[in-house]
Amino acid sequence: MKPSSQLVALMTDFGLQDPYVGMMKGVIAGLSPFSSIVDLTHGIQAQNVLQGALYLGLSAPYFPDGTVFVAVVDPGVGTNRKAVALVTEKQFFVAPDNGLLSYVMKTQKSEACYSITNPSFMLPVQSATFHGRDIFAPVAAHLANGTDPANLGDAIEPEQCVEVVLPENSSTDGGFSWKGEVLFTDVYGNLVTSFTDGLLNREGEPAVGIRMENGTVLPFHRTYGDVDEGKALSYRGSSGFLEIGIRNGNASRSLGLRPGDSIVLLLKPETSQERHTERHRR
Amino acid sequence: MKPSSQLVALMTDFGLQDPYVGMMKGVIAGLSPFSSIVDLTHGIQAQNVLQGALYLGLSAPYFPDGTVFVAVVDPGVGTNRKAVALVTEKQFFVAPDNGLLSYVMKTQKSEACYSITNPSFMLPVQSATFHGRDIFAPVAAHLANGTDPANLGDAIEPEQCVEVVLPENSSTDGGFSWKGEVLFTDVYGNLVTSFTDGLLNREGEPAVGIRMENGTVLPFHRTYGDVDEGKALSYRGSSGFLEIGIRNGNASRSLGLRPGDSIVLLLKPETSQERHTERHRR
Amino acid sequence: MKPSSQLVALMTDFGLQDPYVGMMKGVIAGLSPFSSIVDLTHGIQAQNVLQGALYLGLSAPYFPDGTVFVAVVDPGVGTNRKAVALVTEKQFFVAPDNGLLSYVMKTQKSEACYSITNPSFMLPVQSATFHGRDIFAPVAAHLANGTDPANLGDAIEPEQCVEVVLPENSSTDGGFSWKGEVLFTDVYGNLVTSFTDGLLNREGEPAVGIRMENGTVLPFHRTYGDVDEGKALSYRGSSGFLEIGIRNGNASRSLGLRPGDSIVLLLKPETSQERHTERHRR
Repeated sequence: MKPSSQLVALMTDFGLQDPYVGMMKGVIAGLSPFSSIVDLTHGIQAQNVLQGALYLGLSAPYFPDGTVFVAVVDPGVGTNRKAVALVTEKQFFVAPDNGLLSYVMKTQKSEACYSITNPSFMLPVQSATFHGRDIFAPVAAHLANGTDPANLGDAIEPEQCVEVVLPENSSTDGGFSWKGEVLFTDVYGNLVTSFTDGLLNREGEPAVGIRMENGTVLPFHRTYGDVDEGKALSYRGSSGFLEIGIRNGNASRSLGLRPGDSIVLLLKPETSQERHTERHRR
Repeated sequence: MKPSSQLVALMTDFGLQDPYVGMMKGVIAGLSPFSSIVDLTHGIQAQNVLQGALYLGLSAPYFPDGTVFVAVVDPGVGTNRKAVALVTEKQFFVAPDNGLLSYVMKTQKSEACYSITNPSFMLPVQSATFHGRDIFAPVAAHLANGTDPANLGDAIEPEQCVEVVLPENSSTDGGFSWKGEVLFTDVYGNLVTSFTDGLLNREGEPAVGIRMENGTVLPFHRTYGDVDEGKALSYRGSSGFLEIGIRNGNASRSLGLRPGDSIVLLLKPETSQERHTERHRR
Repeated sequence: MKPSSQLVALMTDFGLQDPYVGMMKGVIAGLSPFSSIVDLTHGIQAQNVLQGALYLGLSAPYFPDGTVFVAVVDPGVGTNRKAVALVTEKQFFVAPDNGLLSYVMKTQKSEACYSITNPSFMLPVQSATFHGRDIFAPVAAHLANGTDPANLGDAIEPEQCVEVVLPENSSTDGGFSWKGEVLFTDVYGNLVTSFTDGLLNREGEPAVGIRMENGTVLPFHRTYGDVDEGKALSYRGSSGFLEIGIRNGNASRSLGLRPGDSIVLLLKPETSQERHTERHRR
């Protein structure tokens, strides 16, 4: 991809309380004054590379072709972990090599990947603890200016990059119930689960619901409005994962569910049996 | 209004912890690459349509003519509530039809209003839970690009839109004391009341103060600096409503006041009596 | 400096929950439609002028020449404190005259300073409590448009401006141990100390560590990755101050350290003694 939009999108776990994100923007604005800078989010949980990887991969498709993403969730800053620039068929990604690009690599076709080592594209002085400002931001600004990413350092195979393992769901009954887990809570208390909505398409069946460990089943509906105020439901989330929520309430707090909790997706076993019978009849 | 500034302003109750606002910005930047995107705030209390309506109406006058506002506080997302685009003499507003535009309609002259139904101006796939990204953001981008709002769907009368009831103050003594309520707390703990500063102009009199339910009167002053550190006061807020604050302190916490609490505005009854006497003398 | 980048950077203690920052951006976008607006941070602790002064001074060097900064941490709003516009060799700064520009003045060469009194560059109506929107934002927009700052009001000597006292470190043993204090906690729980990294350069010696009041010494390392998970360290922070942190942990919480706590920087007294001995030998 050639950068056409000169859009630079930032995702970090820095929060907005401190001046860290502002400093990064100052660096980018200085090196690439005609770029627009947009925040994806700076609210990734501190050092949660898995969450960052998923949010980046889920959000990137909504950004224009040629967007340069700077993603910094970087527990290993200052160690010998690599810094990488990934070029996909659609966009550019600058990040520490710690798995943060795992989900992007699963969902976009990689064209090339480079280990960032050329100091000409970094700030003259690099701190040991803030590569976001000193390395990733200036590299992104140069990419937005049209710098050939091959100038950043040696080409590496995308497969050589560190990968974080995205949670896998498993089924022991041919796909009618799936074991998975709660991934994240959003600010409303909605819970994003590890169940992708691809699971719903098995035999074209919608779900019965999601069963919590205490046996409660949260029935599957299209949207909050399909249940009464204060009632829990599971539904197809807006990002391709099934979610758990409460209409006008906080599901995480009310149900006591937290990231990592085991849950089971139930996919209409009765219906399946009926259909099985029906097929026999046919 | 024709959009001249290509400024798109966003107000939601999404917070900034999650990637939701970032996704909306990606969509807008992709469809309208020359627009500037500005955040009004994403800190509206979750699903508090009344707060959103007031903040939007109070803030819009400070934005340039032609600004396209996207306002999303949307407890009814995915139900049959309408999506609307309002054109006023000054600006454009894209929002769910749930009262969120009530205060704008009270303070700006409406020119036209449309029910948004034309899928050509939405994302190709629309989720049931995130119309901010899938409908409101792309519609705003098209308006910023100069799309005629009449293409969005059927014209409706602005009066047909859902209205939220803004709190009304009442007086039983000819306007020298008014019953009202605390509306919101800001991040400093200042309390925005339902008393508009228009009340202060009755007979050109400033106020005595605001009386809490426990009888305490918070004296009226021009600004924090007119009282000692740690002292409470009431004053003309910067948004046209009277406010309650404590100099270098947190009024909400210290006074135990919360949204919905009843308060009474006192408007110099003594002075009024003096004037009454004076009038008799004349 | 002449503004070349038309970049306006905002720093306040307003937070992002309320519409205050959004209103300021609306005002700037209306008066200076071709400027880019960037947030430095709005998370300065409420009315903490010292923190604001330091963060502004530390961040400004990362922004391009000609940037117009609007800094509002303003406990004295509405009193007779002045509003000032400072022109340095590099950038412009608009702020209340309460010390908020102290650290910028220490680190950048001042060219001129003006007391802002000309109402032509303010909003037509000015509230008593929100000069950020009514005075500082429009003044910044005009500066970004190229207005000569001399039009804003009378020139004053930068030395006449109110100064906040930045914490001074002291040594009683010729510079091998320094008394200082914890300044701030960032969002990760890292602690910024009053020790500038200039102290490290005395005789080219790195530090032994930082001693807490309970006697614990937090050893000095280059970066988090040099200690085991969960271990505390002191290190050269990314902003020119020494910091205290815990690898993948929250130092403020775990060590019980807070802003204002006394700490001692230890600078290799043994080594110094050895060298002293060595010198005698020579």
